[in-house]
Amino acid sequence: MSTWTHVDQTGQGVRMVDISAKPVMRRRAWAEGHIRMSESTRRHLQTQGSPKGPILETARLAGIQAAKQTGSLIPLCHPLSLDEVRLEFEWTDDGLRVEAFVQAEARTGVEMEALTAVSVACLTVYDMCKAVDRSMAIANIRLLRKEGGRSGQVQLGEPRLIRPLDADV
Amino acid sequence: MSTWTHVDQTGQGVRMVDISAKPVMRRRAWAEGHIRMSESTRRHLQTQGSPKGPILETARLAGIQAAKQTGSLIPLCHPLSLDEVRLEFEWTDDGLRVEAFVQAEARTGVEMEALTAVSVACLTVYDMCKAVDRSMAIANIRLLRKEGGRSGQVQLGEPRLIRPLDADV
Amino acid sequence: MSTWTHVDQTGQGVRMVDISAKPVMRRRAWAEGHIRMSESTRRHLQTQGSPKGPILETARLAGIQAAKQTGSLIPLCHPLSLDEVRLEFEWTDDGLRVEAFVQAEARTGVEMEALTAVSVACLTVYDMCKAVDRSMAIANIRLLRKEGGRSGQVQLGEPRLIRPLDADV
Amino acid sequence: MSTWTHVDQTGQGVRMVDISAKPVMRRRAWAEGHIRMSESTRRHLQTQGSPKGPILETARLAGIQAAKQTGSLIPLCHPLSLDEVRLEFEWTDDGLRVEAFVQAEARTGVEMEALTAVSVACLTVYDMCKAVDRSMAIANIRLLRKEGGRSGQVQLGEPRLIRPLDADV
Amino acid sequence: MSTWTHVDQTGQGVRMVDISAKPVMRRRAWAEGHIRMSESTRRHLQTQGSPKGPILETARLAGIQAAKQTGSLIPLCHPLSLDEVRLEFEWTDDGLRVEAFVQAEARTGVEMEALTAVSVACLTVYDMCKAVDRSMAIANIRLLRKEGGRSGQVQLGEPRLIRPLDADV
Amino acid sequence: MSTWTHVDQTGQGVRMVDISAKPVMRRRAWAEGHIRMSESTRRHLQTQGSPKGPILETARLAGIQAAKQTGSLIPLCHPLSLDEVRLEFEWTDDGLRVEAFVQAEARTGVEMEALTAVSVACLTVYDMCKAVDRSMAIANIRLLRKEGGRSGQVQLGEPRLIRPLDADV
Repeated sequence: MSTWTHVDQTGQGVRMVDISAKPVMRRRAWAEGHIRMSESTRRHLQTQGSPKGPILETARLAGIQAAKQTGSLIPLCHPLSLDEVRLEFEWTDDGLRVEAFVQAEARTGVEMEALTAVSVACLTVYDMCKAVDRSMAIANIRLLRKEGGRSGQVQLGEPRLIRPLDADV
Repeated sequence: MSTWTHVDQTGQGVRMVDISAKPVMRRRAWAEGHIRMSESTRRHLQTQGSPKGPILETARLAGIQAAKQTGSLIPLCHPLSLDEVRLEFEWTDDGLRVEAFVQAEARTGVEMEALTAVSVACLTVYDMCKAVDRSMAIANIRLLRKEGGRSGQVQLGEPRLIRPLDADV
Repeated sequence: MSTWTHVDQTGQGVRMVDISAKPVMRRRAWAEGHIRMSESTRRHLQTQGSPKGPILETARLAGIQAAKQTGSLIPLCHPLSLDEVRLEFEWTDDGLRVEAFVQAEARTGVEMEALTAVSVACLTVYDMCKAVDRSMAIANIRLLRKEGGRSGQVQLGEPRLIRPLDADV
Repeated sequence: MSTWTHVDQTGQGVRMVDISAKPVMRRRAWAEGHIRMSESTRRHLQTQGSPKGPILETARLAGIQAAKQTGSLIPLCHPLSLDEVRLEFEWTDDGLRVEAFVQAEARTGVEMEALTAVSVACLTVYDMCKAVDRSMAIANIRLLRKEGGRSGQVQLGEPRLIRPLDADV
Repeated sequence: MSTWTHVDQTGQGVRMVDISAKPVMRRRAWAEGHIRMSESTRRHLQTQGSPKGPILETARLAGIQAAKQTGSLIPLCHPLSLDEVRLEFEWTDDGLRVEAFVQAEARTGVEMEALTAVSVACLTVYDMCKAVDRSMAIANIRLLRKEGGRSGQVQLGEPRLIRPLDADV
Repeated sequence: MSTWTHVDQTGQGVRMVDISAKPVMRRRAWAEGHIRMSESTRRHLQTQGSPKGPILETARLAGIQAAKQTGSLIPLCHPLSLDEVRLEFEWTDDGLRVEAFVQAEARTGVEMEALTAVSVACLTVYDMCKAVDRSMAIANIRLLRKEGGRSGQVQLGEPRLIRPLDADV
């Protein structure tokens, strides 16, 4: 029995949290991110597209595929079967804004999936435009809203392109 | 509220269909594919094997593993936990015929998994034989049968090597 | 020394061919594939797009990404660093034709990469259109042309959308 | 009907076992593995760390991530959604001992996930220490205990660092 | 010949840039990123660590592994063999700063690899700390410096933790 | 300038060794591993095969594919383009022995690739036989021989199934 006494000490390492006792629930998350670029770059992209081809569809696909890979990209994430991944974009004064929505029926939340979708979509836009503008920066990637789980609904910001009601249909 | 009005427009991009409202059901799919080769090649392979080793077992494994990767290979597919993947082969007059069967309990069908299994099995046969015959072609990859889902049973062709009854045992 | 005598027998298994003695050369490959669909489906897709969004760009990206994964999808392929992957499409009387071009500087050819790009692009089109037409089939996936390697240039068919001259620029 | 007669023969190939009829149950598995090294190496590592940085945390993460990839690494394994992966380490007289615990709610057991976690953790330790000691060996990777499934609880050895009671909390 | 006339039109799709004519050169890139968090969170993490275990080592490993996956994460990136990936961290007034350095001998630059390393390291920190602080945001991911390639050395910001001279040793 | 003084301290984390200054050379490695099983199991497998189908070919393929994934499985390994991966098997008194050989032209050695091939081949055999024998163990995975690199040829054991001379042909 004394064998177990040092468990606590060796147990200080990284851990994939045990979610076995958590209920399977509908989980949803919205996240956003931005790419800042010069105004001339933004106008160039809006009218002529990127040097590597259509930006938004490519970034959208990259974001969807990355969301599905979250469990292998982020070391301590649980791999989840996602029911939906959605990304929308809007041009802003200083560049592009990306919004992502993910939902699943799972024992743990899907905010990392939404944040990963946004991050990889931003990286993809960067990659497609870097020949045009080297001074771009990816900014303000954050969680907007979260549903499901012990804490119920958490609202940190306002989804603008993918409205919560849509998700309920 | 008017923020949402342009959702429909921005929402025209690629989408991973929302399956959250679909029921979890037993889903099954059968698919087939063919590799055409010259008669001398086919006879050579049947008697001497391929230059890279045993063809059928290698193609079978490649197909099984590819079925499990469908969710990352096909951009808008949902990743699914498969309960069974099975591939069988038969020599035909003009080459080889591959049949695949996949089943899962899921919110969406498994036909893409069966078609992916068949396609990668065919590519693997091609790879193993290309030193012998350069004029091979992969042909007629199609869905044969599908069970589960709103549309119930769909029969487009006849599975010949993996019979539906087997699956019910 | 007699230890080695049964090598030949045990050596009959699958093998990843030893390419260490082959020269590093510029390798190029062109491949094609087709998706057959009903005329009404094809017209619907041309005018209204697919239920899952823009077809051609999605299939193109799926094909590019699959080409890069060939070394893990096809068990006995060598993983290669590709210099270029390109996919083009044209509507045909009975559906869609996909053409892929791949090039690399490598010890082995890139035909499997081109064929894999074509196959996964076809599967992606199938996935995006299957809600509209269940009777589609993927057909005639084959190598068109190959450059580099011991056998020099091999011409099996005519690339129509990505011309060899382009590649030389 | 005679079409089916040769199924049995062609059906002798590799197969991913059909688990569709098995009940979804809580499955748990414990496994262990060892890395033997010289005493001087072990002491060096304990006091100075490995040439590539902190050993135990790196091996832990590699083991966790590998457990999640088991379904694609081991050809006939079913991909599972894991609820928890845990790895603990202890220094022994002749090196290091790794213990892994995995749990999931699934139709099939998780022993391959635990064994894969242990194996990749051992390979990672090897990789981080190989500049110091070339004569290391990985030894005695085995299943310790298994819960869930038709056969109920199976005890082959004694988990020392991750006690079964912990798992039940 | 007229077959080729519509190439230009169909050729407007996404493309993996042809790098076959670019010289193989030593390529280096430095990038940075930030995670903003509340001061109490930052102090908590510095003294007590994250709820999921040691943060910095975990984020470092996630960043290293993500850099190696850049070619499959970012759709139009070329897969490269990296010679070195390095990540360093420093605590700042409003959170944590991540710096990444990547080098390779390749036909194209490694800035996407450095930016991907930084992004995934930031996501990993977020994941490990989200139980403590929900209002974190990932900010200002950008390229700092780039060496190799047609444009020679490009300096956009100052690497602070991984100095250029180190790289030359 | 003083900014750099704490680099050494922050630099204590895990690191992917910088191999940029190492010469590109022909690298080869041989490794071995064992699976211990009861005599009755071994005889059963030799005469009747495993419950999941042909063991050796499946394990061989799993080993080949794992070798190609070494750079993503083992966190600090460099991804390498392998020229050849070969696995051979022999039945022993207490089970099965696996031998792997890997070669590449690279800046760093391929021993981790050979050890990973052996480990995953052993895990695959375990997976295919676990329904027959639960008391199997994987044992004595170690490097046998290594060629190329600063230290020249290193001989730790005797390859028995894949002889060094073969490799030179």
